[in-house]
Amino acid sequence: MVHSVPDLTGGAGPVLDFERRILDNVPEIEHWFRQQWQERSPPFYASVDLRNAGFKLAPVDTNLFPGGFNNLSEDALPCAVQASQVAIERTCPDALRLLLVPERHTRNIYYLLNVSRLARILSATGLEVRVGSLSEEVTAPTEITLPGGESLRVEPLVRNGARLGTAGFDPCIVLLNNDLSAGAPPILRGLDPDQTLMPPLHAGWSVRRKSHHFACYDEVAAEFARLVGVDPWTFNPLFARCGEVDFRDSAANECLATQVERLLSEIAGRYREHGIREKPFVIVKADAGTYGMGIMTVRDASEVASLNRKQRNKMAVVKEGLQVTEVIIQEGVPSYETLHQSVAEPVVYMIDRYVVGGFHRVHPDRGIDENLNAPGMHFVPLPFFCSCNLPDQRAEPGTSRHNRFYIYGVIARLALLAAALELDRGAPQAESPRADTPALVG
Amino acid sequence: MVHSVPDLTGGAGPVLDFERRILDNVPEIEHWFRQQWQERSPPFYASVDLRNAGFKLAPVDTNLFPGGFNNLSEDALPCAVQASQVAIERTCPDALRLLLVPERHTRNIYYLLNVSRLARILSATGLEVRVGSLSEEVTAPTEITLPGGESLRVEPLVRNGARLGTAGFDPCIVLLNNDLSAGAPPILRGLDPDQTLMPPLHAGWSVRRKSHHFACYDEVAAEFARLVGVDPWTFNPLFARCGEVDFRDSAANECLATQVERLLSEIAGRYREHGIREKPFVIVKADAGTYGMGIMTVRDASEVASLNRKQRNKMAVVKEGLQVTEVIIQEGVPSYETLHQSVAEPVVYMIDRYVVGGFHRVHPDRGIDENLNAPGMHFVPLPFFCSCNLPDQRAEPGTSRHNRFYIYGVIARLALLAAALELDRGAPQAESPRADTPALVG
Repeated sequence: MVHSVPDLTGGAGPVLDFERRILDNVPEIEHWFRQQWQERSPPFYASVDLRNAGFKLAPVDTNLFPGGFNNLSEDALPCAVQASQVAIERTCPDALRLLLVPERHTRNIYYLLNVSRLARILSATGLEVRVGSLSEEVTAPTEITLPGGESLRVEPLVRNGARLGTAGFDPCIVLLNNDLSAGAPPILRGLDPDQTLMPPLHAGWSVRRKSHHFACYDEVAAEFARLVGVDPWTFNPLFARCGEVDFRDSAANECLATQVERLLSEIAGRYREHGIREKPFVIVKADAGTYGMGIMTVRDASEVASLNRKQRNKMAVVKEGLQVTEVIIQEGVPSYETLHQSVAEPVVYMIDRYVVGGFHRVHPDRGIDENLNAPGMHFVPLPFFCSCNLPDQRAEPGTSRHNRFYIYGVIARLALLAAALELDRGAPQAESPRADTPALVG
Repeated sequence: MVHSVPDLTGGAGPVLDFERRILDNVPEIEHWFRQQWQERSPPFYASVDLRNAGFKLAPVDTNLFPGGFNNLSEDALPCAVQASQVAIERTCPDALRLLLVPERHTRNIYYLLNVSRLARILSATGLEVRVGSLSEEVTAPTEITLPGGESLRVEPLVRNGARLGTAGFDPCIVLLNNDLSAGAPPILRGLDPDQTLMPPLHAGWSVRRKSHHFACYDEVAAEFARLVGVDPWTFNPLFARCGEVDFRDSAANECLATQVERLLSEIAGRYREHGIREKPFVIVKADAGTYGMGIMTVRDASEVASLNRKQRNKMAVVKEGLQVTEVIIQEGVPSYETLHQSVAEPVVYMIDRYVVGGFHRVHPDRGIDENLNAPGMHFVPLPFFCSCNLPDQRAEPGTSRHNRFYIYGVIARLALLAAALELDRGAPQAESPRADTPALVG
C-alpha cells in the first residue's frame, strides 16, 4: 500500500502551538537530548506507539523488544545499520559474533520476517549473526523459507558453562528479541559477564511494568515541558494502576472501578481547562502485557463492574497464558490520524539513541478510541524522506510532513529516555523498581 | 539524470577476487575499522575520489573540505544528519551554535548549493548554524537566492578577542569548508581553545600534501591487505614526488622526468605480474592542489620535457594563483566505469566515520585515463539503497549493486583512516609532517 501522509482530522488548536514550540527550539532540544544521553545509556532498541489527538500527541506503549523491523521501509535500513554500528561501538566494540534470541513462535511468518530483517541489519553492522531459539521444537538447525525468497536459519541454543551460543558458535553479544513474558529461562541466567546480554533480563515483561515506565516518563516529560515551555499534559497521558485485580471475580475489582472513575474525572477536568469537547475514556491494560493482549477501552466506571464472561476472559490472560493481576489505567488518547479512511497510529523505531524509521499501524474496523494492535491491522511504512530527523523550520505549523515526523521522533525519544531511566532504576543492584512510583501521577 | 548502475566494461579478473575476499570478511573488516576508530579520530568530513579499473580499485584523491554535498541524493540526508550527530556528540557535545566558513567564491551557484545543503544537515543535527565568509566582498549580511527557492544568508566574519563569529553570534564550533589553499588567514589563527575548529588549520592545502596522505594510505593499505589476504597494489596506487619543479623551465624538471620514467616502469612490472595488457600511465598533480587544477596525464617520460607553453602554464598555477613547485606523480588508474556511455568515477562522501552517500562524476569528453574533475563534468547521485553499508553476501561477485557500493565504501574508509593518520602526524606539536615519508612507496 502506498503511503500518503495521514490526515489529521482532529481539532487543530493546542497541538499546533506545541509543534511551533518544538520547531522553534530544535537546537535546544537536540542539545538537551545530547546531554541526557551523556548521563544515561539508551536500550539497544525500542519502538514507541504514539497517539495523535490533534490536541495531544502522546506515547502509549514502549516496547523494548520491537518485533516489526520488517514493516520499516527498505530505505530506512542504511540509517538502521549506522545506528546499530554506534550501539556496538558504544557497548561492545570488540564484538565479532552476535546471537539473536527471538520469540518462540517460529510459525508466525511476519514475526520471522522481522527476525530476518534484524539479522540483516546486524550483519551489515559487521557482525557474524546466528539465530538461536528458546523453543523446544527447534532441536536441530532449521532453514525456514520466507516470502520474497529469503530464508532464515534457526538453531537450538547451546549452553556451555557460563557461555550461551549455538553449536560451534560462541558469540560476544546475545541480543534478545524475546520479551520474556514468562520470566527469564535458566539458559539465559548467570551468563559470563564477558558475554554482553542486551537488553538486560530485567527489561523482560516478567519484571517490567508499564506503570513504572510511565512514572519515569512523567519525570522526563516534566523536564522537557520546562525546556520548551508547554504543559506536559500535551504529550503525557495520565495514568493510575491497580495491583490486585481479578477479572474473574467482579467483586474484587473495586480498586479498578475507583481508579477508572478518578482518572475519567481528572481527564474531564483537563478537557474543560483546554476547551476540548470530547468524551473522556481510559484504556485498561495488563501492567505487564504485550502483543496488544489484555486491553480494553472504558468510557464509564460502571463498565468495569459489568464485564461479560468473554470480556473478563479476554482481560484475564495475556501472552504465554499468564494471569493478569496488575493493570495500568491509562488516559485514552483518541487517534485523529487516518490513512485511507482508517484510524492510524504512528509507531516509531529506534536503535541506540537514533530514530531509524517507523510506520503507521492502521485498522479499518476500529474506532478512534480503541486499541489498534489487534487482528485486522496492517502497516504502512513511513516514507523515508520523513525519517524524523529533518525538520523544516520554515514551514507553517501543520503543513509539513517533515515536521510532523520530526515531532513524532522527539516524543518517541522522550519515551526512550524514560525507558533508559526505568532500566537504570530496575537494575538488580538498585532498589525495588517500583518503590518510588506513586499510584497516580500525571 | 536517472542513475543506472554503472557498467564496468573493463577486464574482469583480479578485482572480483578482491570483491569476494571483502564480502567473505565483512565482520572482520568492520571489527577492524571499529578498532582503528578507537585509536584515532576521523576528520569531521571527507570525500574520496575512486577509480575502478576492473583489475584495480583505488582512491586517487581525498578531500577534507568536501564541496559537493548538493550532489548527494536527497534520500541520503537522514544518514548524514545521524552521522553528524555522532560527530558532534564525540567532539563537542555541549555545542549549540555552529559557524560554517565556506570558500570565498560567493558567485558559484553549485558551490553555494553545497553550503546550503551542509547548513541544512547541521541544523537538523540540532545546531543553530550561521555562514560567515572570509570574502572581502561580504561586508554586510547578504541573502543569496538559490535555484529551487532556497536562499542562503552569508554574513561577514567578526573577530572578538580570541572568539570568531558573526555579528551577535558566538559559536561553539567553527566548521571550515574552505581548503585554505592560500594559508590560514589571521582571523582564523589563535582562536580560543573553547571554540572547536574543525578540521584543524593544518588540514588546509597550504600545509597538506597529497604525497603525505598517500604515504599514510600505504600503511593503512598494507595492514588491510594482511587482514583480507590480498595484494595491497589491488587497491593502492603507486606514487612518487618531486619537491622542486618549475614548469616554466623545462631544464629544471629532470627530477620529474626521472620519477615519471621510474614509476611507469614499476607499473609496467606490476601489469606483467598480474597479466594486465594495458599501457601504463601516470597522473602528475600539484602536491597541494585541488579543484582538479594542475593535473596532467603522462604516458611517456619524454612528454614532461616537451610540454608546450599552454600545458606549462596550466600546470604552473593552481587555485588562488599559487605557484606549483611540488608535485605528486601517481599511478594512473584507468576508469572502466561508464554511465550513459561516458567515463565515470565514484566519489564517496563521509561524515565522521560513516559513509553517508556518494555520486558518480561523469565526463562525456574525457578518456578512461584522464582526470574527470574538469569543466563539462556532471554528477549523478548514487541511489540511496546503495548506501555503501548494506552488502549482499549471497550475491555472486560482480552482480550486486549493493556489493559494488559497499566495496567503494570500504576503500573510501581506508582513505579516511589515512587522512586521520595524516592529520595526527601533521598536528603542530608533532614532528615535521613529511619527515618520515619516503620518496617512493608502493
